[in-house]
Amino acid sequence: MSIVDLLLGRRLASDQARGEQIGASAGIPIFGLDALSSAAYGPEAALTLLIPLGLAGIGYIVPISLTIVVLLTIVYFSYRQTIQAYPGGGGSYTVARQNLGASAGLLAAAALMIDYTLVVAVGISAGVGALVSVVPSLQPETLPLCLGILLVITWVNLRGLREAGLIFMAPTYLFVGSLLVAIGIGVVKALAAGGHPVALVAPPRPGIASVGPNPWLLLQAFASGCTAMTGVEAVANGVKAFREPVISTARRTLTIIIAILIVLLAGIAYLIRAYGIGATAPGEPGYQSVLSMLFAAVVGKGLFYYISMASILMVLALSANTAFADFPRLCRAIAQNNYLPHAFGTRGRRLVYTEGIWVLAVLAGFLLILFGGVTDRLIPLFAVGAFLAFTLSQAGMVAHWRRLGGPGATRSIIVNGIGAVATGITVVVVLSAKFVEGAWVTMLLIPALLIVMVYVRRHYHNVFLETRCATPLDVTNLTAPLVVLPVQNWNQIVKKSLRFALKISSEIRVVHVNTGEKTEILREEWKRFVEEPTQQAGVAIPELIILPSPYRLILSPIVDYVLNVERTCPDQQIAVLVPELVEKHWYHYLLHNKRGSILKALLLLRGNRRIVLINVPWYLES
Amino acid sequence: MSIVDLLLGRRLASDQARGEQIGASAGIPIFGLDALSSAAYGPEAALTLLIPLGLAGIGYIVPISLTIVVLLTIVYFSYRQTIQAYPGGGGSYTVARQNLGASAGLLAAAALMIDYTLVVAVGISAGVGALVSVVPSLQPETLPLCLGILLVITWVNLRGLREAGLIFMAPTYLFVGSLLVAIGIGVVKALAAGGHPVALVAPPRPGIASVGPNPWLLLQAFASGCTAMTGVEAVANGVKAFREPVISTARRTLTIIIAILIVLLAGIAYLIRAYGIGATAPGEPGYQSVLSMLFAAVVGKGLFYYISMASILMVLALSANTAFADFPRLCRAIAQNNYLPHAFGTRGRRLVYTEGIWVLAVLAGFLLILFGGVTDRLIPLFAVGAFLAFTLSQAGMVAHWRRLGGPGATRSIIVNGIGAVATGITVVVVLSAKFVEGAWVTMLLIPALLIVMVYVRRHYHNVFLETRCATPLDVTNLTAPLVVLPVQNWNQIVKKSLRFALKISSEIRVVHVNTGEKTEILREEWKRFVEEPTQQAGVAIPELIILPSPYRLILSPIVDYVLNVERTCPDQQIAVLVPELVEKHWYHYLLHNKRGSILKALLLLRGNRRIVLINVPWYLES
Repeated sequence: MSIVDLLLGRRLASDQARGEQIGASAGIPIFGLDALSSAAYGPEAALTLLIPLGLAGIGYIVPISLTIVVLLTIVYFSYRQTIQAYPGGGGSYTVARQNLGASAGLLAAAALMIDYTLVVAVGISAGVGALVSVVPSLQPETLPLCLGILLVITWVNLRGLREAGLIFMAPTYLFVGSLLVAIGIGVVKALAAGGHPVALVAPPRPGIASVGPNPWLLLQAFASGCTAMTGVEAVANGVKAFREPVISTARRTLTIIIAILIVLLAGIAYLIRAYGIGATAPGEPGYQSVLSMLFAAVVGKGLFYYISMASILMVLALSANTAFADFPRLCRAIAQNNYLPHAFGTRGRRLVYTEGIWVLAVLAGFLLILFGGVTDRLIPLFAVGAFLAFTLSQAGMVAHWRRLGGPGATRSIIVNGIGAVATGITVVVVLSAKFVEGAWVTMLLIPALLIVMVYVRRHYHNVFLETRCATPLDVTNLTAPLVVLPVQNWNQIVKKSLRFALKISSEIRVVHVNTGEKTEILREEWKRFVEEPTQQAGVAIPELIILPSPYRLILSPIVDYVLNVERTCPDQQIAVLVPELVEKHWYHYLLHNKRGSILKALLLLRGNRRIVLINVPWYLES
Repeated sequence: MSIVDLLLGRRLASDQARGEQIGASAGIPIFGLDALSSAAYGPEAALTLLIPLGLAGIGYIVPISLTIVVLLTIVYFSYRQTIQAYPGGGGSYTVARQNLGASAGLLAAAALMIDYTLVVAVGISAGVGALVSVVPSLQPETLPLCLGILLVITWVNLRGLREAGLIFMAPTYLFVGSLLVAIGIGVVKALAAGGHPVALVAPPRPGIASVGPNPWLLLQAFASGCTAMTGVEAVANGVKAFREPVISTARRTLTIIIAILIVLLAGIAYLIRAYGIGATAPGEPGYQSVLSMLFAAVVGKGLFYYISMASILMVLALSANTAFADFPRLCRAIAQNNYLPHAFGTRGRRLVYTEGIWVLAVLAGFLLILFGGVTDRLIPLFAVGAFLAFTLSQAGMVAHWRRLGGPGATRSIIVNGIGAVATGITVVVVLSAKFVEGAWVTMLLIPALLIVMVYVRRHYHNVFLETRCATPLDVTNLTAPLVVLPVQNWNQIVKKSLRFALKISSEIRVVHVNTGEKTEILREEWKRFVEEPTQQAGVAIPELIILPSPYRLILSPIVDYVLNVERTCPDQQIAVLVPELVEKHWYHYLLHNKRGSILKALLLLRGNRRIVLINVPWYLES
């Protein structure tokens, strides 16, 4: 078993793809981690913006959360329909492209690609941030920790989708389980106490209100809370990864994810109000996360509290995994339409789209390094992309049903139509609420990415036009090529190359660059070792051509000669024979000149379609 | 005029070498800078070790300097003889090699190579150190300043030997001139005052003696003072660079350099004693260089003082240039005997041995970076190498005269014999006095370098044995090669490659790796576009071979197939045709797979002498 096998797992045959398919229980950690983990920061993001309202602000978390839950329900029903309509994988890109045209598809694709990259960076740095707030001594190691987690996630994903699901299952279910238990206990206590339970560990009292409630502030709180919805698209995009029957497996997975998320969001909102938990300002002394205060209030700071906190840290850090599952699939779909390099479509040893995983890891790593592992400032950027993709996808589905018609079409149009309008409005709200804070960056990145994609497509198209061929092989006029062989002195390598030249052609020009040393010796050897035997055997006599070189250049005269011969022989192809010493050890590299390789490179660079390179290797035995 | 021409000067033709030759006036700065500049640190190095002796110690500088002057005179006469005996360049390497055998030659070579590298690093850092002690605000820029000077010296040397001489002429003569003037004035004043002149600016009073005079201390002072003699070998090694008549031009240059150096060393020693100037501890507050105190005492701190100080700084920093003139010549001589890569023997655009210049610059730059631009600790390392080379060179000359015999031989043997003994004793003295301080490093580096050189030579010899050829071309059995052409689908590139294959052979195997997609289409196209026309035309019909690939590998099956065919066809060479797309723009690189290049590399790596690579390039027009 090689080291690569050990690291990345045995290579899987193409027909083993079935064994890599997943059911709902593995699908939830793989495609749901992103959505579910957002329960840990969505409500907090909204609540933080309500701090200026003091105690009165806490009450608003319930209507804001309910709005998000309603939106989530709408999106859920839309994506259920999408899964059925696109069992081959119905990401926003595919749906928008097929129903609204290529431009809409690319817009969705660009938005999603940016969104996923941000999700990876922000998720990992949020997890590490939470860890650091518990163990402050790790503060200086923030960036190495982030990069370490990124490396682990990348590595696990390179080992294949199924293994990633298995590995991330435990923390995901621990997270969901402990949150559900805490919410259950809290709700029972609250109901038993008539809506005013007594906290086991009392949360800090909210500050005094500095402003009154106003629509703009509430809108901003809503926009921040919407980050809880990113990642919902993943299941619809990854349908093909599921086990047969794919549609119902994928739907079941989506249903479970959304149902859990709704319970979590609603429960957290209810308990926040019941226990009167206000957010504390992040980055200031005495900061505590909302979930930490909530757990302490409901169950006290016991073992359960610490286990739950640990699961939250892990799930936040691992939420990046959803992007790793989906980004490569998205890139592959785009590459299949020639908008991205074809390499994104190649499946690696474990049947995952390796290039996409690497590109995502590098981009996210770059962001993490750029921001030193603290990516709070990136958060405003990433709801825009997600909601833009939602809207395009829903609008695409409306067009899909209108085109398809049939009995259930009207109902479906209404479901997707509501989804499109609701998410469309949310895009506008998020964009305007977060524009100054950073959403404008996304608005610049999307068109830049679009330009690149259009350019890539045009290039591929041009290459296709140039190389396509629907005509048969032309078998007339098969004159052997004129062979040019550069030579310094007479030796075994030259002898072998010359023999090869005689095998393929009868017109051979051996060129020697005169740098003042070995020319006369070569002339004599040539007469004795080449001219005489060829003459006697009656085969074609190779011609020796001596090129002057006053400036001690070796390669330029040869290249010039070849180009000149090409111009003067319109009927024959030119084959340049390049003998080359192949070293057995890398440290021999410095001992021999690289003239062979450089000559090959020069001829490729300055040559044309009529010049062919023949490389005769000579392997050193010693 | 291209940017390269502007930077490095017009390319010189080989027959312009004469114009690059130099006379004595340019030879002094080129080959003498190292030796002359050591007048600025040799006496100081000795005097510093005498500090513990207090006022009494100053007196010892005169006998120590006289010993060095005597040694210098002996070495001078020896090298005069060497120049005459070896007008082709008689460095220690050549002389020791030809008279004492290859091992002695290599020992001298290794010692000198290490010495030159150290001289560059130490010279530059000493110059910058002196500058920084005048302008302390430059302290943090020490390393950038050192690297900047290294870059300038490298650049000037790449422009050719003659230009380097012209550029460094002014500071050299300014330095020599101002020192001679100051010494002249000082000596006149001292004689007029009966040996006890009054200093214009009094030097600080030496401290109280902490120890009494002892032989070991004096020996160490002498060993330190000997650093003044490094660089003397340069002229003898570079004879070929001089103008006709080379021997007398080189000898005149050597005479002038040694004469000036002797006057400087003797004059400085006399004035140190006459004015009672003791060294101050370097690196401590109140430190002043000995020459600075001397100039201030003799001529006061006027304009002349400052101009002289400036010229000292420059000459120290530029003393590295001698190593740049000599190191490449030394490496070239060694490379000609196959002990170093042959690349050292190639003359660049300005007729200098470019590789040697680059290697020296990189090594010295590495040392400067490693020591942060402060290389005091390297000083003990570098007299050993120089004196070891002197000794071997002198001993070689003794053997030379003994072999030659003739009328003047006895006289010459005596001159060189005294030189050999004197420098041999000095090696032992320097080595034992400086062993703990760092000379042991040199003692480790020399054998390491020897091992590398012997290894290089053995490798070249093996390659020579393997590739040499004194037999004529074998023109029997010239069967055309079996051509293998890997193909994915039918297109223009394949069509063109196939045509080329038909031109050189009638046995063609087209291999296609079945990755499950385009195989069936290719089969049909093959029938229509290849089989039918070749059948009709009656030419050889290429065979289509479909290779399975369950693990989606493209290249491995092709390479395995080629190796397999090679084994089963002992009578034919195998020619693998690799079609390749040549991109016009570097940014197209990512858009196309590199299978062509990787296949070529794999075949070179895993192939053997019977497998030839044919590269058919396809240039994109768009």
